[in-house]
Amino acid sequence: MSDGKRILLTAHPDGMPDETHLRLESMPIPQPGSGEVLLRTVYLSLDPYMRGRMNPGKSYAQPVELGAPMVGGTVCEVMESHRDGFAEGDLVLAATGWQTHALSDGSGLRKLDPKAAPITTALGVMGMPGLTAYVGLFDHGRPQPGETVVVSAAAGAVGQVVGQIAKLKGCRVVGIAGAADKCAYVVEELGFDAAVNYRASDFAEQLAKACAEGVDVYFENVGGAVFDAVLPLMNDFGRIPVCGRIAHYNNAAASGGVEGGASPLVRTMGLVLVRRLTLRGFIVSDHADRLDDFLRDMGGWLRSGQLRYREDLVQGLDSAIDAFQGLLEGRNRGKLLVQVGADPTLPPT
Amino acid sequence: MSDGKRILLTAHPDGMPDETHLRLESMPIPQPGSGEVLLRTVYLSLDPYMRGRMNPGKSYAQPVELGAPMVGGTVCEVMESHRDGFAEGDLVLAATGWQTHALSDGSGLRKLDPKAAPITTALGVMGMPGLTAYVGLFDHGRPQPGETVVVSAAAGAVGQVVGQIAKLKGCRVVGIAGAADKCAYVVEELGFDAAVNYRASDFAEQLAKACAEGVDVYFENVGGAVFDAVLPLMNDFGRIPVCGRIAHYNNAAASGGVEGGASPLVRTMGLVLVRRLTLRGFIVSDHADRLDDFLRDMGGWLRSGQLRYREDLVQGLDSAIDAFQGLLEGRNRGKLLVQVGADPTLPPT
Repeated sequence: MSDGKRILLTAHPDGMPDETHLRLESMPIPQPGSGEVLLRTVYLSLDPYMRGRMNPGKSYAQPVELGAPMVGGTVCEVMESHRDGFAEGDLVLAATGWQTHALSDGSGLRKLDPKAAPITTALGVMGMPGLTAYVGLFDHGRPQPGETVVVSAAAGAVGQVVGQIAKLKGCRVVGIAGAADKCAYVVEELGFDAAVNYRASDFAEQLAKACAEGVDVYFENVGGAVFDAVLPLMNDFGRIPVCGRIAHYNNAAASGGVEGGASPLVRTMGLVLVRRLTLRGFIVSDHADRLDDFLRDMGGWLRSGQLRYREDLVQGLDSAIDAFQGLLEGRNRGKLLVQVGADPTLPPT
Repeated sequence: MSDGKRILLTAHPDGMPDETHLRLESMPIPQPGSGEVLLRTVYLSLDPYMRGRMNPGKSYAQPVELGAPMVGGTVCEVMESHRDGFAEGDLVLAATGWQTHALSDGSGLRKLDPKAAPITTALGVMGMPGLTAYVGLFDHGRPQPGETVVVSAAAGAVGQVVGQIAKLKGCRVVGIAGAADKCAYVVEELGFDAAVNYRASDFAEQLAKACAEGVDVYFENVGGAVFDAVLPLMNDFGRIPVCGRIAHYNNAAASGGVEGGASPLVRTMGLVLVRRLTLRGFIVSDHADRLDDFLRDMGGWLRSGQLRYREDLVQGLDSAIDAFQGLLEGRNRGKLLVQVGADPTLPPT
């Protein structure tokens, strides 16, 4: 039997990974033991998240250890099975990484039916990238018919799905991509309403023009100048599912690490992504519907003595300007109020 | 009858507002017409949001026009009523701004019962600052018992409520304030578990120590160095309700305007606040519960031809490193796959 091959991570790249960080080597084809199956890789998926796994720092997933094969989703054929439920010739979705062969105890394998869909789609539209688009857009983006959805990396594995399912939801969809043929593809083949090339010198102007009614959902894959151009176009109550920041993936500090290197915004967005944070701006005047609940709860806590408060009372309207300056400087102690006139509820002094 | 007084906005401040932007002047006490009431201001609330209203740019609310009285929440006494439902001596919550007297047609007035709670609380714990704390913490922060909640401007009108109601929910609460007596107040009087002074030279270390299990909810009132210190402590799936950014309010660009001035992070957070944006990092592997829905929907769209896709197929594991570089550079067209071995579902070539 001919030898297999695999690609190991041998050094942590500081920038673009190349042959000094990833080493192709031969390997003997492993022999399955009892309860194991031997898998032959048919297709290996390559995805942007893999760049993060090459960094040493803790991200949302364990980094790949030096000397270990790179991780990755695969479609495999079962060559030999010593495990019930798997037979030679079965096709499975697996995560055997960057190698031609691997053993498995069956955990995490999902059998594929080649008659239901081409097996490659298990790594694409019917797989992790498709689910990413589906969850990110529907659950986090919550698009409504008639809203404008912008998706960056629009022609990529995730972006092409995001735009199409947003169209199915009745949204206006604007794609952002980095090549004229990608822009043409998403408009002409996938039915996006518009697409803008972020390498154009007047990119921000073109984008603003394509989003004449602002942006309600921005599906963020890219970061950098693309994020900067979309952000000012966001409408009130807009949603930004942060799926990826590919412009920053070759900067280790930006893609998970906290220390040094990247700018404050890039570090912030890196943490939003890897720690799955939710940042939510809010203004109390939007929430009048909660007033009754609030008055009931807060009134109860106040009467029971469970809630205390401190007030900082300043005398006379003439004092308002100075008091307001103090508020901005933190000079007040508790809720700042100006007593403008006599309080009829208090005994006369 | 003696004259009244009011404070007008006469110029847009670029920095700290003072008497060159706000002018105290006398005014005749207005006469109520038919259907109107004359209000006498007892208490005027001073709140940080007022700084934003002094800027010319469109924010979430209309700016105050030059020459107009500054806006603000008030508790007023009805002096004279030509409107059914209001009688002389009634106490009402109003929004008559920085002036001693005002007319009202009754819209937006809420009658106060001085026996239910001190009337000042209508501008504090039982008013807008209290509702802000309630909605921001409960609806946007969604704290769970045992979680760690951090609140900045902890001794302020909103912060003191946030911390106490988080304690009522069973959370561990850490306050951040800018003076030793404020820190002592929230711990000793309000029952916070800890408080840290952001002016301390070792503030970030103290904060990390006080949040030994990380931060699940950060109620953001402040921005600047406080935000920078809390962010790296956030736990996975943390929530950051963005209520205010008082450290930046004297920078017009940071508090609503889009152009110039502030840093990219400060501008981003300013927009998150005034446009009530939601930024949500997500990772597909957290959403396995949506797999069945996804496979059903996506499979249907694929079979019906409503969803298209493009694949970029590279031949041989030897090509993986170059192909991955291309992915990071945007050279691929559609979903990138490496064909590692023969595909048994395809006819032999």
